[in-house]
Amino acid sequence: MTKVKKADVIVIGAGLSGLHAASLLKRNGKRVVLLEARDRVGGRSLNHQFANGDLVDVGGQWIGPGHDQMYELLKQHQLKTYPLYDGGKNLIYLRQKITEYSGTIPKLNIAQTLQLGWMLWRFDKLVSGINPAAPYEHAQASKWDSMTVQTWINRNSISETARKAFTIVIKAVFTVEPKELSMLHALFYAKSNCSLDYLISVNGGAQQDRIHGGSQGLCLALAKQLSEELELNHPVTLVEHDQDGVTVTCKNGAVYSAAHLISAIPPNRLLRIDFDPIMPSTKDQMWQRMPAGSCIKCVAQYETPFWRDKGLSGQSIGLDDDLLVNVTFDNTEKGKTSGLLMGFIEGDSARYWGQKSDADRKQAVLSVFAKYFGQQALTPIDYVDKDWSSEEWTRGCYAASFGVGGWTEFGRHLATPIGRIHFAGTETASDWYGYFEGALQAAERAVNEVLELIKKRRG
Amino acid sequence: MTKVKKADVIVIGAGLSGLHAASLLKRNGKRVVLLEARDRVGGRSLNHQFANGDLVDVGGQWIGPGHDQMYELLKQHQLKTYPLYDGGKNLIYLRQKITEYSGTIPKLNIAQTLQLGWMLWRFDKLVSGINPAAPYEHAQASKWDSMTVQTWINRNSISETARKAFTIVIKAVFTVEPKELSMLHALFYAKSNCSLDYLISVNGGAQQDRIHGGSQGLCLALAKQLSEELELNHPVTLVEHDQDGVTVTCKNGAVYSAAHLISAIPPNRLLRIDFDPIMPSTKDQMWQRMPAGSCIKCVAQYETPFWRDKGLSGQSIGLDDDLLVNVTFDNTEKGKTSGLLMGFIEGDSARYWGQKSDADRKQAVLSVFAKYFGQQALTPIDYVDKDWSSEEWTRGCYAASFGVGGWTEFGRHLATPIGRIHFAGTETASDWYGYFEGALQAAERAVNEVLELIKKRRG
Repeated sequence: MTKVKKADVIVIGAGLSGLHAASLLKRNGKRVVLLEARDRVGGRSLNHQFANGDLVDVGGQWIGPGHDQMYELLKQHQLKTYPLYDGGKNLIYLRQKITEYSGTIPKLNIAQTLQLGWMLWRFDKLVSGINPAAPYEHAQASKWDSMTVQTWINRNSISETARKAFTIVIKAVFTVEPKELSMLHALFYAKSNCSLDYLISVNGGAQQDRIHGGSQGLCLALAKQLSEELELNHPVTLVEHDQDGVTVTCKNGAVYSAAHLISAIPPNRLLRIDFDPIMPSTKDQMWQRMPAGSCIKCVAQYETPFWRDKGLSGQSIGLDDDLLVNVTFDNTEKGKTSGLLMGFIEGDSARYWGQKSDADRKQAVLSVFAKYFGQQALTPIDYVDKDWSSEEWTRGCYAASFGVGGWTEFGRHLATPIGRIHFAGTETASDWYGYFEGALQAAERAVNEVLELIKKRRG
Repeated sequence: MTKVKKADVIVIGAGLSGLHAASLLKRNGKRVVLLEARDRVGGRSLNHQFANGDLVDVGGQWIGPGHDQMYELLKQHQLKTYPLYDGGKNLIYLRQKITEYSGTIPKLNIAQTLQLGWMLWRFDKLVSGINPAAPYEHAQASKWDSMTVQTWINRNSISETARKAFTIVIKAVFTVEPKELSMLHALFYAKSNCSLDYLISVNGGAQQDRIHGGSQGLCLALAKQLSEELELNHPVTLVEHDQDGVTVTCKNGAVYSAAHLISAIPPNRLLRIDFDPIMPSTKDQMWQRMPAGSCIKCVAQYETPFWRDKGLSGQSIGLDDDLLVNVTFDNTEKGKTSGLLMGFIEGDSARYWGQKSDADRKQAVLSVFAKYFGQQALTPIDYVDKDWSSEEWTRGCYAASFGVGGWTEFGRHLATPIGRIHFAGTETASDWYGYFEGALQAAERAVNEVLELIKKRRG
């Protein structure tokens, strides 16, 4: 007979949300077990070490104004932030020609620039009316959930170039094609993160700050304080639950029981856990309708951030169809000598390039970097990329998006507990969905649900 | 050490597709193991026995012209078909008023009838150009895969009533709301099954014939000939695979190895099997984008098919918003005394009513039957309903549908083998997708793949 280890609360998933939930519970005097499938903590937050010892984020990396709990938590753990390098000019690559520009909106011809600006403005006008805690309650919810973002783009653009630029904005924000995305989900997501303008901005926006030593540092710091509670290499295969509590069985045979469970894993991974009794169809069919995005993050390391000498920010947007990387950033850590260029492969390109060999993909990415920043980009001192769709315990990034109809049909069930099972993770956050801050807020909400119920029982 | 049982081919899933695949392989002299999670065969084909002993289909039930392999297989197993009762008038319920009509298109006012007819005709005009083996190759594929069926409906209807009627057609065919559905998937599905007109027709269409004794009878007959090969109560948890073959581990600890594996389970269930090495993201992310429909099938049993005495066919369509059942059929087995009325709860209603108590749902369904067929419908001698979204090993019916963007982004990977793993099941069929006939054809295709490879190796 397997020995059953007991706790007050079991948390599944030692990404930021699960780690934060476990920390909060521990601080409230609860006995916690934190089960992680991988041999590491961090989930979609992951450091990679280059040959020269420098660390770089190959997962989530950004924080921005409004991410109050993140800044606070980083401070508590003596982790410092620095602003993303935002000096110099940005580049736009269009019809095989490079143009420099400043600010968020790339420089097209005047009519196209105006139109792109108008599309962004018009989108954010719609965003402003959304309640991120209940987007399905908006008077137009059904209309927007019945159409793809592509349909909206087609209706709200005249110039092909402005349409392409807006498409790249959507791909960069959601890591899926506009055709895959419910307009209501896009509006919700933008509102959940202030606005589309916030999402695409550096200074004052979602890409404002980075974390020294990589974002995974925060997860590692949290894990350090949970050495008693954390069990790595413990994929959960079965959750038995009833009105009194939960019993969790791991792949390695370990069994845990507790009064409550908090899940902090993405929707597509939740589908792969056996529940007994099974989850109601409002949850199971909802998770079937929340596919993860498709994204490969690519970082090249150079002796120096040589583009800065040319007066360039490292930020670029490429509109031509043959580009596998459409946006780049200067990912150099402040204070380090070596310079990092980072680019995303997203949506359709991620599916295509995820099947290619590492060498072919590297070559293709560097050749795009070279188009933007010159031949020097072809000879980095190191290179790494990470295809999150191929990561067993994630299977897609940045986050899950509701398909069309999902929010209006299933949205009200997104974060509701099922008996003793509660749901955290950034995909259950109404504010800052998809970001670290959402992961923290969802954890706090789930922990409060649990503490409230425990209190009530003792009542 | 667990004893590993060896076979030439392992088939997962003893629904019609898996049973047929196993039969074909056996006939070709291959050693087969057929692993089924449930304690029964049949998958989405299921008989229910009423208190009086009569059998009724609570899963898939129809066959129609063109389902050649089905008719042939039924004949081989001495199973007889009979036409669905199609005598008398159909009913339409609109603004709380009942009208009788004949034929497929319900009787609205003349303008609305013309418009609904025009929508059906226009839809089928688009359908005719699709190649069901490669719908993503159509010149307009990207356009159609970027829009929902709801968007198409909005653009192609003026009258609210015609729009509602078309919506109910879509819900009845796909068991999801038009807003959830990619227009390209809808066109593909219709072409795969001849046309939308075929899909909604009784005589000469998809609802033409039934099987005496229930459709599961065919699966039971096939299973009888596979008593050596079939293992019930064997949910597969892990598939290890390499260039030489596969090793399959079941929940109960049983282990099987073989040169090839054929999966004959739906996409959402495939997501829940561990593969080692993991599936490429082209498969995994594709399955994340193929949610199952939402459907509850409801059957009331009466002393006699009393509606026939009133000159009614038992077929009805209800357009009012408060109706949980929008279409009904006379499900009486030919030659039986008792009469059966059958109705589907689909899409949004299935999600809502799936959460209600059995008693409440029964009451609500009967009250709709009573609206159509009179007070007598309130007092059946027996009643059964089946919520397929709540079935652990199915989690949705009739079939999976690609969400928007799915076909163009992932479609070419739908049925391609991954090493020694091959894919059957109706959701991998290019012809008759979603129907028994598709399940058979997909099985045959997968079996041929395997036999071809075995032959090649023997040189």
